[in-house]
Amino acid sequence: MAKRISRNTFVMEAPPEIHSYAAIVGKKEGDGPLGKCFDQVYEDTYFGQTTWEHAEGELLRLTVLKAIEKGGLTKDDINYMFAGDLINQCTTTSYGLRDLEIPLLCVYGACSTMSESLLLASLMTDGGMGGYVAAVTSSHFCSAERQFRFPLSYGGVRTPTAQWTCTASGAVIVCPEGSGSHICIKGAAVGKIVDMGQTDANNMGAAMAPAAAYIIKTYLNDRNMSPEDFDLIITGDLGRVGGMLLIELLANDGIEIAPRYKDCGTMIFDFENQDVHAGGSGCGCSASVLCGYFLDKVKSGEYKNILFCATGALMSPTMSQQGESIPSISHAVHIAHKD
Amino acid sequence: MAKRISRNTFVMEAPPEIHSYAAIVGKKEGDGPLGKCFDQVYEDTYFGQTTWEHAEGELLRLTVLKAIEKGGLTKDDINYMFAGDLINQCTTTSYGLRDLEIPLLCVYGACSTMSESLLLASLMTDGGMGGYVAAVTSSHFCSAERQFRFPLSYGGVRTPTAQWTCTASGAVIVCPEGSGSHICIKGAAVGKIVDMGQTDANNMGAAMAPAAAYIIKTYLNDRNMSPEDFDLIITGDLGRVGGMLLIELLANDGIEIAPRYKDCGTMIFDFENQDVHAGGSGCGCSASVLCGYFLDKVKSGEYKNILFCATGALMSPTMSQQGESIPSISHAVHIAHKD
Repeated sequence: MAKRISRNTFVMEAPPEIHSYAAIVGKKEGDGPLGKCFDQVYEDTYFGQTTWEHAEGELLRLTVLKAIEKGGLTKDDINYMFAGDLINQCTTTSYGLRDLEIPLLCVYGACSTMSESLLLASLMTDGGMGGYVAAVTSSHFCSAERQFRFPLSYGGVRTPTAQWTCTASGAVIVCPEGSGSHICIKGAAVGKIVDMGQTDANNMGAAMAPAAAYIIKTYLNDRNMSPEDFDLIITGDLGRVGGMLLIELLANDGIEIAPRYKDCGTMIFDFENQDVHAGGSGCGCSASVLCGYFLDKVKSGEYKNILFCATGALMSPTMSQQGESIPSISHAVHIAHKD
Repeated sequence: MAKRISRNTFVMEAPPEIHSYAAIVGKKEGDGPLGKCFDQVYEDTYFGQTTWEHAEGELLRLTVLKAIEKGGLTKDDINYMFAGDLINQCTTTSYGLRDLEIPLLCVYGACSTMSESLLLASLMTDGGMGGYVAAVTSSHFCSAERQFRFPLSYGGVRTPTAQWTCTASGAVIVCPEGSGSHICIKGAAVGKIVDMGQTDANNMGAAMAPAAAYIIKTYLNDRNMSPEDFDLIITGDLGRVGGMLLIELLANDGIEIAPRYKDCGTMIFDFENQDVHAGGSGCGCSASVLCGYFLDKVKSGEYKNILFCATGALMSPTMSQQGESIPSISHAVHIAHKD
């Protein structure tokens, strides 16, 4: 079982392994710099459905099934899954995954969901309670935009700090040690809500940066590690603005991550040609970049250790209307190559 | 560590214990038949705040702090918590609990949240990864009503099958075996989404009954137990309509629960005098009845074994407007007296 070495940091004793994984994205993400990395790119933004919510549900379902298929499994081999999404009442998860009949533990972490679900799947597996356990999430530009900001048809002008919610999904199947996989989970840390009073829903990167700084610092300190112990430290969707702030916040604490820092939100789109302002965002952003890009490189041994910290702005339109700031959270998962 | 004896049923090996617990409710719940059981009854529906969302957040925060205080602990003793609620983006959890600075794993299970959070806290603890771990949730009539149905000032007439969202919260602190507590968790089962095509958002009990039937049957079968092994089998908020349906559904499978069946939604209000139609509902309904009423009776030994199955209608107004049915889920937690 995993050992809790501090209040909220865990070290795996029999590091759980990643059996298989998949990423599926929409057209815009497919046109981006990572387009060739994803398992599938859908030209049809509706994914064959008639509403945006059903479209996102279908995207999530297809991605889970793809990860299962790539692992040579069937859906009945998955004992249970941790899943969540951005849409109110986790609609995507409930409606998109209901027909799979896989036992479900639904989580909510906004765009930190991939870290939260992967952390829980890994801890349960290291605790001997797993088998094949899935950790999955998704987001969709059109369902998110109309829920969190404006109806698409309104044609609102976006501010320079605004981010673009990715139409993307990622799914990971976790299994116990000894599977022969070349990817394992070495440790994890549970995040806490950090709220520095940022109120601009069009600058989520700035709201999330302090939560990312907290969890990176916590994991490094608790494990007595430094950034140099990792090939990369990866955040979910801080974007350009939040990413720079994170580097600065950690530098103030004597932690220099700049040379080995990547943010999925700045990787998935081409800033010059895709008009995405501060970068990509959404649960599916970090999930698809993890499953489409990073895990292959950990598998091949190009990266030996990465610290994956998806970042969530726990933003609520209702609370923003009440003048409230944006609480944020990030969880850390330490993923490593295994020979 | 807990042993997974089937796809999704777990038996605890070193049964985690319930260190302390608390329930706080609003005025109407305090006026009900269980009024004297709760730790506190607030006359002020706003809980000293200025909006319904902040009111619910404060109710949840007060309840968590009460459970911590009753356990002779401070908030810094809680290593992490599983928490969730009904409000979009789990606003109550994010805003209500942010100042506690307790590491957070947010879950979404609609009204099944108390089962989901208690199940996860128990499994993590039996897996040796706990310490003091909190499992908490809440609901508030006013925040739920305006989100899921109509603004309160609209004065909509309620249908006979409609349920009344409780203004209530429950919090449990789970700790490892050997604490001296007289309440332990013996087992649990992870639910799956069941959707029988029920589309009436004013008859959630009927939507949820099949999910409850599935998880009760699963736990009993997987453990080779019968209803007679329990003093009570408890659902969250099926209400009168859903409760009768559950009894019938299980009877069709040869499982007779009627003599030992209770539903928190039918217990918390006085049907004759409180005009609640089919009964109470909301995450806080089963959470407060568990923490205010049942756990004391398990502690005293009046009940030796109860099966607690909070039930969640994963209802979405957006999806209801699209003509969709209501997927539901329920998780089972087997709670027992320990001498």
